[in-house]
Amino acid sequence: MSETRTETDSFGPLEVPTEKYWGAQTQRSIMNFPIGWEKQPVAIVRALGVIKKACAMANKANGKMDAKIADAVIQAAGEVFEGKFDDNFPLVVWQTGSGTQSNMNSNEVIANRAIEILGGVIGSKDPVHPNDHCNMGQSSNDTFPTAMHIAAAMTVRDVLLPGLTKLAEGLEAKSEEFKDIIKIGRTHTQDATPLTLGQEFGGYAHQIRQGIARVEAALPGIYELAQGGTAVGTGLNTQPGWGETVAANMAEITGLPFVTAPNKFEALAAHDAMVFMSGALATVAGSMYKIANDIRFLGSGPRSGLGELILPENEPGSSIMPGKVNPTQAEAMTQVAAHVMGNNAAMTFAGSQGHFELNVYNPMMSYNLLQSMQLLGDVADSFTERMLNGIKANEPRIDKLMKESLMLVTALAPTIGYDNATKVAKTAHKNGTTLKEEAIALGFVDEATFDAVVRPEQMIGPKA
Amino acid sequence: MSETRTETDSFGPLEVPTEKYWGAQTQRSIMNFPIGWEKQPVAIVRALGVIKKACAMANKANGKMDAKIADAVIQAAGEVFEGKFDDNFPLVVWQTGSGTQSNMNSNEVIANRAIEILGGVIGSKDPVHPNDHCNMGQSSNDTFPTAMHIAAAMTVRDVLLPGLTKLAEGLEAKSEEFKDIIKIGRTHTQDATPLTLGQEFGGYAHQIRQGIARVEAALPGIYELAQGGTAVGTGLNTQPGWGETVAANMAEITGLPFVTAPNKFEALAAHDAMVFMSGALATVAGSMYKIANDIRFLGSGPRSGLGELILPENEPGSSIMPGKVNPTQAEAMTQVAAHVMGNNAAMTFAGSQGHFELNVYNPMMSYNLLQSMQLLGDVADSFTERMLNGIKANEPRIDKLMKESLMLVTALAPTIGYDNATKVAKTAHKNGTTLKEEAIALGFVDEATFDAVVRPEQMIGPKA
Ligand SMILES: O=C(O)/C=C/C(=O)O
Ligand SMILES: O=C(O)/C=C/C(=O)O
Repeated sequence: MSETRTETDSFGPLEVPTEKYWGAQTQRSIMNFPIGWEKQPVAIVRALGVIKKACAMANKANGKMDAKIADAVIQAAGEVFEGKFDDNFPLVVWQTGSGTQSNMNSNEVIANRAIEILGGVIGSKDPVHPNDHCNMGQSSNDTFPTAMHIAAAMTVRDVLLPGLTKLAEGLEAKSEEFKDIIKIGRTHTQDATPLTLGQEFGGYAHQIRQGIARVEAALPGIYELAQGGTAVGTGLNTQPGWGETVAANMAEITGLPFVTAPNKFEALAAHDAMVFMSGALATVAGSMYKIANDIRFLGSGPRSGLGELILPENEPGSSIMPGKVNPTQAEAMTQVAAHVMGNNAAMTFAGSQGHFELNVYNPMMSYNLLQSMQLLGDVADSFTERMLNGIKANEPRIDKLMKESLMLVTALAPTIGYDNATKVAKTAHKNGTTLKEEAIALGFVDEATFDAVVRPEQMIGPKA
Repeated sequence: MSETRTETDSFGPLEVPTEKYWGAQTQRSIMNFPIGWEKQPVAIVRALGVIKKACAMANKANGKMDAKIADAVIQAAGEVFEGKFDDNFPLVVWQTGSGTQSNMNSNEVIANRAIEILGGVIGSKDPVHPNDHCNMGQSSNDTFPTAMHIAAAMTVRDVLLPGLTKLAEGLEAKSEEFKDIIKIGRTHTQDATPLTLGQEFGGYAHQIRQGIARVEAALPGIYELAQGGTAVGTGLNTQPGWGETVAANMAEITGLPFVTAPNKFEALAAHDAMVFMSGALATVAGSMYKIANDIRFLGSGPRSGLGELILPENEPGSSIMPGKVNPTQAEAMTQVAAHVMGNNAAMTFAGSQGHFELNVYNPMMSYNLLQSMQLLGDVADSFTERMLNGIKANEPRIDKLMKESLMLVTALAPTIGYDNATKVAKTAHKNGTTLKEEAIALGFVDEATFDAVVRPEQMIGPKA
């Protein structure tokens, strides 16, 4: 047992570990919500630091808070933002749906740290009170949604977009590297007309570029902050212009273009901007799923698969089969993608469940959204570095499969007609012969015409 | 920097922290999958201990493994099962989709611990080799699916069913306590005919009892173990009867009725039993959602809501509104429920994605399933203890709302006809009067008849 000190809230006294800065409401939440192992994400903790600092700055500027107290709160909140108190946020996701207990966790930690800075007694609430000072002009109902948006915007900037950009650039580099390699196309999993491997990867690259654009299209709503709505959206206990001021402060602290939400009732009672962002993430997940799946099938083998791609070897693949190597980065990516689709289902449902002035699914929604962002960003980075960048084209195999394909017959159709071309393909398939042999044998073309018409390199784009 | 020792795998040497028992393949996975913050659940680690112990027992019994080595492996694996090595399993969920790296993590930890028991040099693979001994007769492809089933079955027994049973018993106790309290029913959110508060809670209790039955109905598939299929379901590198023997050993170790799966190809390539279980969990989540939602609305107020229930006060509810108390346990429960619905979406999708001989969504699927089980069990327990057991009926309020209700008129319909009864209700609503006043004023009944017919206590069941 570690040493404890006594902290109090309106429900009475409670013992708190001496080395921790949190107070009675945090401790009460630990006792009242022994549910699961998912803690509030660190990004939420940091965002709460941003908010408490921004609000104390505003309260100092307008003279509502004593400057000495405000400075201590600003310093303490800044330390929370910088990550110095990450281990003072022990609460789980599965608590009050407004995030009140995590808001109070930040108020209690910042108050005690500010008291310490001012030379007072931790736990005394003197001269800094968690509600009266750290929560001044705020409610959990505007603070936690604001923290959700700030955390999301920071994670997009710091994790998601860097990962997606690296993946898009990696795909574009492969598209360029593979631009002269002609291969068979496949539709419905069946052989189709040729394209270049560069075109195929260029399609993947465009998917991810579009995904980046979709995430960016969902960002303006995330940049709108609920702060200033206080308890029910009316802004009780704030002053005119408060929302604008604190949003500007938060923009300054984070370097992100935050603005105050134009309608605070919507901002408290709905989380549609987060649901829209989740939809963008699910779209990106779908793109990644398609790309990783294609790459592992194109790289299947090494002896008995499609074998068009040679995938990098990162680790032993099997506990039982010596020498086996697997496309494990694709497996990580597709698992992440499926999981993000699940998170999106939870987001959509929870987003629909606002009741009157408040939606009380905050911690769960931010947990899911931030997890999706973190996983997509991380896996994009890892996949690019450990899979994509090391992919080589198996040119002899690609060439063989392309030349053997019956679908090159499509180029003959304008010359000999669709039905005759079909006859050529089917006869060649039946006899195990080539298209050229059968086209000549069936008397549809001579060799020179065939060679002039059936040229894969002429089949990879429209013809003038 | 902590001290390191050199470990090797087929890709070469790697440095591993000296105080840890894992080897090169685990270390390589740490390096190759820096994705997210979700570690393999502890239940999976313990289940791998069960498997490695059960297989070493079989390998000793049939003479395939030297008895001294087998005994050391049995002891080491037993220690993993007992939780002594939980901190030696550092790998994340987002790794190879077969869970090979976590299987190798267990092989490496157990081999090194067994080497230590036998007085050898950790990392030497002598006299105990992670693949040759700890993985003998096994592949990740049967081992990890087996671990998923064992972990799920243990979590059902130890967390989920105790939680659900406590919730069902709590609801039944309230149903009994409230059996004489007649209240207004509500359909479409609008007033309807009366029922007892006990009947209402009895419906909730039955939902949860049915939920328990649904979970139990999904258990037989979970008790079927893939072990013995090895790499592709054929059982290469095992002996006849191996699957039966190891399943029996696992049943003995855990006290759960495990059997060998009748078709190993299905057991490796599909995880339909887990998807079915996830569906049962989603159904339970839906039940909990309904119950928690009803209770918070029936307890809404304290002054301006339905106010039929008085909910226990566990903690201060608001950072801004002094004295406010909120139904936070219901919020935890509904957040869990929405999250479980999301997990189920991910499970269903991933379950559909087996390719040929293997489904490679194992770590993600078991993470989601185990999380759903843990959260539903924990929240059922917490909700019962901190919300349900403390609920009181607000009898004066219930009686007032019931007596004022216009839907008591339904009892008059058999006597004066539906259309006349409608007239009574609409007139009373318009005039703000009682049903009795208007029924008499409109000349449909006299007072004695009204009193004989409109008796709420006669309206709470079919009449003989
Ligand atoms: O780890 C194994 O046993 C098998 C892996 C694989 O099928 O590649
Ligand atoms: O914590 C708050 O500020 C508000 C909570 C509530 O609306 O009850």
